[in-house]
Amino acid sequence: MKLAVSGGMVGDYEELLRPALRMPWCIRFCPDRAALLAELGDADAVVTMSWAAGMPPAPHLRLLQLPGAGLDAVDLAAVPPTATVCNVYEHEIGIGEYVLATMLEKEIGLARLQAEIRADDWRSSLFCGGTPHGELFGKTLGIVGYGRIGRETAKRAKAFGLKVVAATRSPEKRDEQVDEIVGMAQLPQVLARADYLLIACPLSAETRGLIDRAAFAAMRRSAVLINVARGPVVDEDALYEACRDRLIAGAVIDVWYNYPKGGARIEPPSKHPLKHLDNVLMTPHVSGVSGGLLRRRWSLIANNLNRLAAGQPLLNVVRAPLSAP
Amino acid sequence: MKLAVSGGMVGDYEELLRPALRMPWCIRFCPDRAALLAELGDADAVVTMSWAAGMPPAPHLRLLQLPGAGLDAVDLAAVPPTATVCNVYEHEIGIGEYVLATMLEKEIGLARLQAEIRADDWRSSLFCGGTPHGELFGKTLGIVGYGRIGRETAKRAKAFGLKVVAATRSPEKRDEQVDEIVGMAQLPQVLARADYLLIACPLSAETRGLIDRAAFAAMRRSAVLINVARGPVVDEDALYEACRDRLIAGAVIDVWYNYPKGGARIEPPSKHPLKHLDNVLMTPHVSGVSGGLLRRRWSLIANNLNRLAAGQPLLNVVRAPLSAP
Repeated sequence: MKLAVSGGMVGDYEELLRPALRMPWCIRFCPDRAALLAELGDADAVVTMSWAAGMPPAPHLRLLQLPGAGLDAVDLAAVPPTATVCNVYEHEIGIGEYVLATMLEKEIGLARLQAEIRADDWRSSLFCGGTPHGELFGKTLGIVGYGRIGRETAKRAKAFGLKVVAATRSPEKRDEQVDEIVGMAQLPQVLARADYLLIACPLSAETRGLIDRAAFAAMRRSAVLINVARGPVVDEDALYEACRDRLIAGAVIDVWYNYPKGGARIEPPSKHPLKHLDNVLMTPHVSGVSGGLLRRRWSLIANNLNRLAAGQPLLNVVRAPLSAP
Repeated sequence: MKLAVSGGMVGDYEELLRPALRMPWCIRFCPDRAALLAELGDADAVVTMSWAAGMPPAPHLRLLQLPGAGLDAVDLAAVPPTATVCNVYEHEIGIGEYVLATMLEKEIGLARLQAEIRADDWRSSLFCGGTPHGELFGKTLGIVGYGRIGRETAKRAKAFGLKVVAATRSPEKRDEQVDEIVGMAQLPQVLARADYLLIACPLSAETRGLIDRAAFAAMRRSAVLINVARGPVVDEDALYEACRDRLIAGAVIDVWYNYPKGGARIEPPSKHPLKHLDNVLMTPHVSGVSGGLLRRRWSLIANNLNRLAAGQPLLNVVRAPLSAP
């Protein structure tokens, strides 16, 4: 059986994949899109994050395995009807850690403290009349979209003595880690109460631009927005204005509006100069990208390939096949 | 009744103290040591971190209230026998937050990621072949000294999926947040297993230099040492050598060997150039110094002053009076 693996975001993780396969697979690691498209004609399985109308026929395809969670780059109507579409998660642990890391950095400011004491300067110490840093204890974390990421973050946040309130499409799925959970219609209540507002919902027609000017206006001026979902859930213009004009205290942005294309390494992540604002903590879409993530994901992908070869049910199915191969 | 409050580390927190007092107190905020010593003759209570032999008599002293936890600057034999000595804690929440913040910074490296993307550079992104960052999940936190700080840190660490092992003088005081707890004689077992080793014991004759060359040699080369206790629990020379020669992966140091004196703001915190090592995360003794800490501490100090005035039992007594006033 033949597997084609898209490069780029997926990477060339042969050393994680091959030892876990129980059957011999012919594996093509494709460094670019053209190479992937050239392999579709006889591929039984493809690992890629994107599928669009107009791609070459893939008549034997039985598994389109996404190496990530998000379906936003997949046109399901264009996927061959013989194929099952599966995704993987496993990023919720790394993202939960990242979210707490950024909240703690906002409270404590390790970067600044370290720069000072490396210059033998104790100005921030109480010995020298410095101002105390902040604390998470007792604050409120609002979460928009209470799925895997929301739950892993809430679990950690509760251990810090944070109150957790969430707005979600499925408020009946409450658990012990959330203090209050409401439907999306009650989002304004969450916006008004959050000291930290975590965006952790999928990008969809309903959520595109969900955090707009009105949402920022509803937030506390002391609040910090954290986006680890997809950039466009937060309106790009409204985000810049809210941070620039201090309508909120600041933002943590890991997901963006522009991404590098065609092998480039340099690309402004937004059309606005967020990078010139000192109240924005920026990272290049890495929140969930930990070594542990890749080990867990490729283990699950290998498991699915083994199941496909053995005729067993697949894991993490997001679309069943529409017709037999 | 008269209260003298030492400046410097304590600060001039009249706005936190005075509204909480139920009786009229004459309060002297003393900007320096000489001013404090001049007030001892008729003081009923003193708030200061240090008491030494040779200080002027304080014949009316009934309360020596430390505004912090550590007794290392107090010569108990020199404290007037009429005085009760009390301390305060409340720093364990801030320190627990700081410890997790530094562990997460060691794993994720927000400072570096941010510098890159502020230059529009995506080199650390998977899109550009970047290397994944680390994860706390599944690692082992060793704690030396399992008191208030150890417990608050362990509570947070468990929520991150860390295994927690502790060495303490009182291993019978185990709780649900620690996976294993051993006596100090079994410290080498903890050293050998810890991915992160948190020093959270008091400084005493037994713990001075506890983490010496032999201790560093017993640690994993991938381990990170975190000291939030007192500098000299870790041997200064051995620390520098271990970090410089990468006997361990790195260190987080908040407590030091030299402190600013006499109003100075610039003072090298160590005789060794730790500041030139990129594997040392340094901060100026701020781990527990949060706004919440000061509110909680001064609330407790006011409570003790109210109790003293009302003849009620004092809180956090570390030495009862030796004779009646």
